[in-house]
This record gives sequence, C-alpha cells and structure tokens, in this order.
Amino acid sequence: MRLQSIYNIAALCFESGIRDVIICPGSRCAPLTLAFTRYGKFNVRVFSDERSAAFVGLGIAQATQKPVVLICTSGSAAYNFAPAVAEAFFAGVPLIVLTADRPAEWINQYDGQTIFQYEIFGKHVKQSYQLPQEYEHQDNVWNIYKIVTEAIQTSLLPKKGPIHINVPLREPLYPKVNEIITFEAPVQKNEVTHFQSALSIQAKNNITEKIKNAKRILIVAAQGFPSDEERKSLASFSAALNAPILADVISNFHGIENGIHHADTFLGNLAEEQKEKLQPDLLLSFGMSVISKQIKLFLRQKNFTHFHIGEEWPVADPFQSQPQAILTTAENFFQSFQDLKLSNQNTAYLNDWILLEKKAKEKTNQFFTHTEKGEFKFVSDCLQHLPENCNLHVANSMSVRYANYCGITKNNVTLYANRGTSGIDGCTSTVVGHCLAHPEKLNVFITGDIAFFYDRNAFWHHYHLPNLRIVLLNNQGGVIFKLIDGPSDLPEANDFFVAKQKFKAKYTCEENNIEYHSFDHHLPTENFWTSFFEKKNTPALVEFNSDVETNRLIFEQFKKQVIHSIQ
Amino acid sequence: MRLQSIYNIAALCFESGIRDVIICPGSRCAPLTLAFTRYGKFNVRVFSDERSAAFVGLGIAQATQKPVVLICTSGSAAYNFAPAVAEAFFAGVPLIVLTADRPAEWINQYDGQTIFQYEIFGKHVKQSYQLPQEYEHQDNVWNIYKIVTEAIQTSLLPKKGPIHINVPLREPLYPKVNEIITFEAPVQKNEVTHFQSALSIQAKNNITEKIKNAKRILIVAAQGFPSDEERKSLASFSAALNAPILADVISNFHGIENGIHHADTFLGNLAEEQKEKLQPDLLLSFGMSVISKQIKLFLRQKNFTHFHIGEEWPVADPFQSQPQAILTTAENFFQSFQDLKLSNQNTAYLNDWILLEKKAKEKTNQFFTHTEKGEFKFVSDCLQHLPENCNLHVANSMSVRYANYCGITKNNVTLYANRGTSGIDGCTSTVVGHCLAHPEKLNVFITGDIAFFYDRNAFWHHYHLPNLRIVLLNNQGGVIFKLIDGPSDLPEANDFFVAKQKFKAKYTCEENNIEYHSFDHHLPTENFWTSFFEKKNTPALVEFNSDVETNRLIFEQFKKQVIHSIQ
Repeated sequence: MRLQSIYNIAALCFESGIRDVIICPGSRCAPLTLAFTRYGKFNVRVFSDERSAAFVGLGIAQATQKPVVLICTSGSAAYNFAPAVAEAFFAGVPLIVLTADRPAEWINQYDGQTIFQYEIFGKHVKQSYQLPQEYEHQDNVWNIYKIVTEAIQTSLLPKKGPIHINVPLREPLYPKVNEIITFEAPVQKNEVTHFQSALSIQAKNNITEKIKNAKRILIVAAQGFPSDEERKSLASFSAALNAPILADVISNFHGIENGIHHADTFLGNLAEEQKEKLQPDLLLSFGMSVISKQIKLFLRQKNFTHFHIGEEWPVADPFQSQPQAILTTAENFFQSFQDLKLSNQNTAYLNDWILLEKKAKEKTNQFFTHTEKGEFKFVSDCLQHLPENCNLHVANSMSVRYANYCGITKNNVTLYANRGTSGIDGCTSTVVGHCLAHPEKLNVFITGDIAFFYDRNAFWHHYHLPNLRIVLLNNQGGVIFKLIDGPSDLPEANDFFVAKQKFKAKYTCEENNIEYHSFDHHLPTENFWTSFFEKKNTPALVEFNSDVETNRLIFEQFKKQVIHSIQ
Repeated sequence: MRLQSIYNIAALCFESGIRDVIICPGSRCAPLTLAFTRYGKFNVRVFSDERSAAFVGLGIAQATQKPVVLICTSGSAAYNFAPAVAEAFFAGVPLIVLTADRPAEWINQYDGQTIFQYEIFGKHVKQSYQLPQEYEHQDNVWNIYKIVTEAIQTSLLPKKGPIHINVPLREPLYPKVNEIITFEAPVQKNEVTHFQSALSIQAKNNITEKIKNAKRILIVAAQGFPSDEERKSLASFSAALNAPILADVISNFHGIENGIHHADTFLGNLAEEQKEKLQPDLLLSFGMSVISKQIKLFLRQKNFTHFHIGEEWPVADPFQSQPQAILTTAENFFQSFQDLKLSNQNTAYLNDWILLEKKAKEKTNQFFTHTEKGEFKFVSDCLQHLPENCNLHVANSMSVRYANYCGITKNNVTLYANRGTSGIDGCTSTVVGHCLAHPEKLNVFITGDIAFFYDRNAFWHHYHLPNLRIVLLNNQGGVIFKLIDGPSDLPEANDFFVAKQKFKAKYTCEENNIEYHSFDHHLPTENFWTSFFEKKNTPALVEFNSDVETNRLIFEQFKKQVIHSIQ
C-alpha cells in the first residue's frame, strides 16, 4: 500500500508507549487520522480549534508524563498549535506534533491551505523533522521510521519538550470505502538505555567542601511536581544543614519543614541590613521558574556561590548569579548527600527566615479573618476548602499571584500553572487535558475573566468533565494592571491596560451544560464550598463578581496590613 | 527622555500615512501603547484575544489599503498573531507587527513571558527586524527610525504584506503619573519614488506577436479587487480578442462581458474531446488564487504558452505551466495593448465557452427554482437579495464554494475571502475589521458553524457593528467532509472529519447584543431578506439550521441535475 509507512507511524507511536492522540479535523491529514483511529488502541480525541486542542494535549501530557500526539491539517492550523508548543517547550512537556502538509513543490503556488510549515515552530521545539513525500522506497521507509522513533525518544530526554514532524502527503489521501488498513510492527524498536549516573569522588568532595564551608545555605525550589521521595530527601537535607527552603506555591512543596512560602510577602519591605542577614553564601536551586518577583530581586546581582541542580543544559540564570550546573535530578542530588551526615550548627540563619515566615503567615491569616469581601478573600476561602488530593490549577496572571500569597496547606494538593510562557491563552484548555487524562481526579481551576473568556473554546467538544470545578474571578477586566505599580494610576489604565470587558459566565455555562453559581461581592458560605467540591455529573463553575476598584483597595490593605507591616 | 525614540515610532507611523492601530493589552508593551494612544491622531482599538485582534487588523488593512499597526506584549501573545500574519503574507495585506519583548539577555532565563520572538513568524513576513534595546545613543536612534520607516515602505511595495519589528523594552516601562510624552517629527521622511514603468518596444512586439499568433486565448482572473478602470480595460481587451475570461467569484469580475463564472460547475464532467476544444494555446492570468478545482485540473500539465501578469516575483504556478512573468499590474497591461487594436476573428472558441456558461447558469437557476430546502438554496436566496454596493464576505471552506457555484449578479458587490491560507481561524474577525474601517458600508458574512464558533472572540470587545449581517449555515459540523469525495463514505466521517458540534448561535447573539433570527430547514421569505439587510442599530445574524444529510442529498442532486447534465 502506497501509504503503508505513513500508517505505520501509529504502530510506532503505540510501541513507544504513546496512548493519547488529539486530532483536529482536516482533509490533508486524513491518512494520519485514519492510521491513529483504526489502530484501535489509542485514546483519540477530536477538537476543532487547534489552539485549544494543543493546550488540551499539553494538559494530558503533563498529567500522564507521556508524549501526546497532536495532528492537524495543512495551512494555518499548525500556527494555532504554536502557543501551546511554546508553553510545552519552556515547561518541559513532551508533545509529538504531526502537521500534515502538501508536497513541497506546491508550497507558495497559490494552492489552498499551504504555508511554510517546515520549522514553523522555530526554536520552540527540541527538533524539527520533515518526512519524505514518497513513502515506498526502502530508504524513505527507513527514514520515516527513524525520524518517528528518534523524535519520541528526543521528546522524553531531559529537558522533555515538543517535537515537530512535518508530513507532506500526496493525493489520493483517502482509502477506498471498504479498504482495510493494516499495521506492521516496527522491525527494531528504538529504545534509549540510560546508565545510572553517579558522582565521582572528586566532584562529591568538591561539593561537600563547599557545603561544609558555607555558613548560610539557602535552597530555592522553583516550579516542579516533586515525588514523595524527592520531598523526603529535600526535607532531611534541609534539616541536616539548617537550610531554609524558599518554596513558591508553584514548587509544590506545600507545608514542607523549613519551607518558606511567604517570601514574596515579606522580602520586599525589609530594611537593607535585614535583607543582608538573609543573604546566603551558598544557594542551591532546582526546578523551573520562580513566581515571586521579590525572591528574584532579593537574589539578583548578589555575591554567593550558586549550584543549580537539574539535568538541563544550558542552565538559566534568573538570579544573575552565574550558577554552576550539577547535572542530575534534585532527588538524586539530595540523596547523594544524605549519607554524609552533614550538619551545620548555624541555626540563626534558618531561624531568621522562619521567624519572618511565621509573621507573614500570621498576618496573612489575620488579614483574611478581618476581610469580608473581594476576590482575594474569595480565593483564600476556596484554598481553605480544597478537598484532599485534588489538582489545583491557577491561570495567569493574577490568580497564580493570589494563590502564592495565600499558600496551600494541604500537602497532597498538586498545583499546576502554565508558567513556561506565562500566557493566558490556554490555561482552561490545559485543565481540560488534566480532567480527561485522570477522570477520577478532581481538578479545581482558579481563573480571571480575561483568561477564562479568551479560551472559551476549551469547552467546544463532546467530552464530559464532571471532575472540573472552575472558580472564576470576574472583575470585568485585567485587574492586575490596577494592582501593580506603573499602569494603575495612568489615565490610560482602564481603556488600554485593564481592557474592561462585559461578559459573564452564565451563557458559557448554559451553552456547555456547566452547573453555574454566582456571587456578587458577598462571599459564599462554608457549606457552599463543601457542596461545590462534591462529586457531580457535570462540571461546575462559581463566578465571583466584583469590581476592579474594590479589589484594588483590598490589595492596598493587604500591602499595608501585611506586606509593609513585616520588619 | 530614555524612551523618546521608542515614543517617536508613533509619529513616524503617522507621518507615513498609518491611521489604524490595534493594541492587545499587556505590561511589556506599555511604552508602545502609550506612544500610540497619546499621539492622539490614530484610531486605536483594543482587543484581548491576540488571534482575533490580528485578523481584525488584517480586515482594516484590507479595507483601507493602508498598513495597520498591531501591538502585543511579550511571550506567546506574538504567536497568537501568527495565523493572521500568515494570511496577510499570502493575501498581500500590509501589517506592521510590533511585538514588545524583554531585553535579549533575559530570554530563556526562566523570567516570565519570554519566548524566542526574533524572526518568530519565519517566512511569513516580508522582513523581520529587531530594534536595539538601548534607545539613546545616536546610532540606535538612527537605527530605530531607519527600521520603522523602511518597514512601512516594504509592507507597501508589491507584493504588499506583513512586517515584523521585535521591540525589546527594558524597565522601567511606565512614565510617572503626570509625565507628559512629547513626539518629535522625523528628521527625514523615507518615501519611495516610483517611476512609471513602460514596456520596451521589443518586449511589446514580442508579446503582441504571441497574442496575434494565438488562436485560442484564455484569460484567468484569479482573486482580486479590480477597480473600474481595470474592469473596463479587461473587458475591451477580451472583446477585441474574443477571449473568454474565467472569473471565479473571488475575482470580483461579476457580470463582466465574456465572463465565465460557472467553470467549476461544467468543466469537470465534459468529455475529453470537448475539453480539448476548450484548451487555450495562450493563457493570460492575473490575480492571486483560483478557487475552482476544476479550472486547475483543466489547465494543469497542458501545452500552452502562459503569461502571468502581476508585479510579484517569483510567480506562482498553480497550473503547472511554467508561466512567463509580465511584471506589471493587470490594468497597466491591458491598457498597454488597448492601443494596438489587436483582434482575433476566431469567435468559435469564445462561443464554445459562452454556450457552456449559459447552460450552466440556466441549469443552476432551474435547480434553485425547484429546490425548497437546504443551506445551498439558502445561500442562493441570500445572494439574490444582496443589497447594492455591499461587501460580501465568505468563510472557508464550504461557504466560499457555495458562493462560487451560485455566482453573484450585482457588479458593485465586492467579495472578500481569506484565501491566502484558506483558514477558518479568523474569517469573522476579518469581517469585523471591515465593519470598523468603513462604518457606512454594509458587510454581509456567510459562514458555516465551525468557522463561526471557532472565532467567536471576534465579538469580545466594545465596538459597535451595526453594519454587520451574519448568515450562519449551522449544520452542526464540517459539512464539506460529507460533500467531497473521499471522506464522505468512510466509517470515520462523522466522528473524525465532520467533527459534529452542538452549538447554536443564540447564546453568542444574546451575549453580544446581536439581533437573532433562526430558521429550521424551511427558508425565509423575500421580506425577511429585505428587512434583514435594512439599516439597524445592532448587528444581526440569521442562523439556518439544517442537517448534514439533507445538505449532502441536495448537493448530490446539484451534481446530478447540473454538474453531470452539462455536456
């Protein structure tokens, strides 16, 4: 069969462990659509808006930790995948993007739905491939298999990420009505064998010495999804060294011992001499991005030794500290130094941090006890009532910041946020991906109105999402521009930054059969939250309507009563 | 002022004739936002969804024939512009895309909202620029002015198209609250002076000889927006040479003498010997793309001399005929040969075409006279009742095909369709751009449900669109996959190609204050159309609900009674 090697891509993907496929309908991609549906063993899901589809794929890949195949037709469809591909690249999520294309000779010849698809994602994929456009010569068959198997492995090697395979397809694209498509198992499976990496004695001695000589060791846990083992190894490392752990809410080290979760609250207002006392002489960091601007400002352009632990090269330098790379996983690193029974008798440094953390936490709690309106309090209430073992998703840009100020007390809640590119373009669709990947898991999603309405097409499909709870902060615009310094007092603020908008979620909920609750300014009761998070047959949404001005005032109070009161 | 040269970009754009600016809110782009709003003379419009925003900009640029400035913040925002940028590139629409960026040293350093923005649109812009990230050194100031003025001119030189200027902006981004921004006029305006081009005598003689020796001259008018002069010159050229004009509906040569508008209907079914009689020995083409697949198949890989007239180089070759380029406008070309009093006495060739055109037109009319349901008839009715001097917009993919089969009888109706990439991703937003650019002009938009719901964010803004009429063919899926050969009979057709969807436009209309009309299967009366097209204070939408199967059967009848009956 002329297209046999193209059909076999489905078999290769399955053999390599892929289980989830997203198809965006089109004609040019018909051979790929048929291959993956007729293979019969994939979870194949169909979405019409490619932008949303790709974020759904990202969510599934993030939840399953396996690459997800995305398929689209030729033309601008591929470009609609791009926002999610960029997020996947920076967030380290494996995707295999198969874009159907016309044969190369037809590009730019005024033949419909043709754009320049090869390398269309630029630097936002780990690798770009172009399949041959003849499929039968044995060299082409070999080439197709080689590319697909290599691509899957590449997507999984650190740092995980998206791969693009452009697939030129020549007509005829459709088999005959009763034609049967068969699949051939690959001759050789391409597997990568990893040796377990170990530190050389010399390297271990070097690092040990640095650690022993350090008087003030600070750990920064950036965005990540730690396993129980990672958590344990970090906790005991920190305990042995009296090292505070700066752990933003996106690090998912909620409630860890020696954890400093409110640094964004208290760091900004400290006097210079107090900041100096908190400065480390050795910084150990791991994970992806940090959300707290105050942590970044506190660490930037200072004088300390910085080890960044992670498998990725080159190493980003968010603190302008020229980090030295330790190329292994955080778990591996902390376990390697567990045996050493290091101990650091300088408890003062740790205590300074913990005291501030305690103050910030107390003042934050007090603040919310005395606050009776506004979306900040609404978020705090929501987080208080989160069920055990749920996923919490927070949209950019204000939702994730609110969550970081509040903190999460339940250790078994995993927080997700699209912090690779920090876009609002696919937050909802990403959550939908999580809901589909693990139907038994509750997914709570806190979002603002701009992010929510931007990505309404996340609901434009046939899949049931009873495990989705949406907490919508509707302040009719981008409230962040009224809360941050800079734009808030400009005459242009409302029209050109906040971008006031008038939608309410009611229509979206009716249209999509989402249980709808709405609160205007006054806050829901405890009972509401309990019943909102209960098991249901449909998704549910609670819309909290408030105005930008109220929220701005409350945030000002938070600054005054909490941020500026800690010294 | 540190950012003075950045602020001056607004002045440069205004001096170069730009009047319309689209802003997508964000923090990094604040200096650009402030420059263009405070300049005070632009039509500045704000949209939150960058994908839709860029298509609105495309629509305005298409309507005004001037470049439109698009502004977005850093991160994936730019990627959401990409579908419209690609459409603008292939459709020849001038856009100046200003993407705010972080300074280069912060890219890929885990600092929020940073992606690889330089050259992000790949080959889909005429030119990519990167502004310097220091703005005060005189060489940088010169560089910024040079880039902006050059970019604007480049966007306007044939073939018009989009330009990308990436703008790294260093903090602080905001002026003080009462700080006044002033603008400096550019020292020197960059203008391009064109010499009027004329044919050399030798070239003219060469072409004249080819034309004189030809017995069967065929003209193909591809997509375009001809002026009255162009229309007149083409008509008299065609009359002198007895040359039929193949004019798809997207060519906008509705009702031109010797115009063949139904070629897609009658060409496919002709016997080989009849097709041979219609083959040209000289083909003259101009314009962008042709929509009729039958015209392409009829002309591909045949033996004739082909001149393509247009200012663009290189020349696309949709008919696989190795066209010889004549690098001038169609109007210029046809006028140049007007004087020569060329004539061709072979009327038989023209008559063969005209006879078939007449048959096809008659049979099409008969078909619609006897058809009483289905969306095809609904489209035909709508086109019959189009008001004078309106714009007609047709979405991809079935809407434009229906319109092409029906044809348009009013010469003063201009038809627009996003045929650069033939995507469904921004058809509605493009129409919104036209509505905003010319508030006094009625814009009628025929669209299917997939294209319509895909781009619902076209209505997510504050602008009034009383001059918009939407004709929505809601068959709950991508009906084209049931009408074209290939997928229609596959078991996967409904689930993986048609992608059945359940939305009705009711909610969208309520949410956006759009006058809503709905018809289930039975067709509206003549009175309905008259009142629908009347002047109103709000946009209006008519939703025609029908099912895929009915439409499939009716299209089968059209094939049988019209397409297959012409010999």
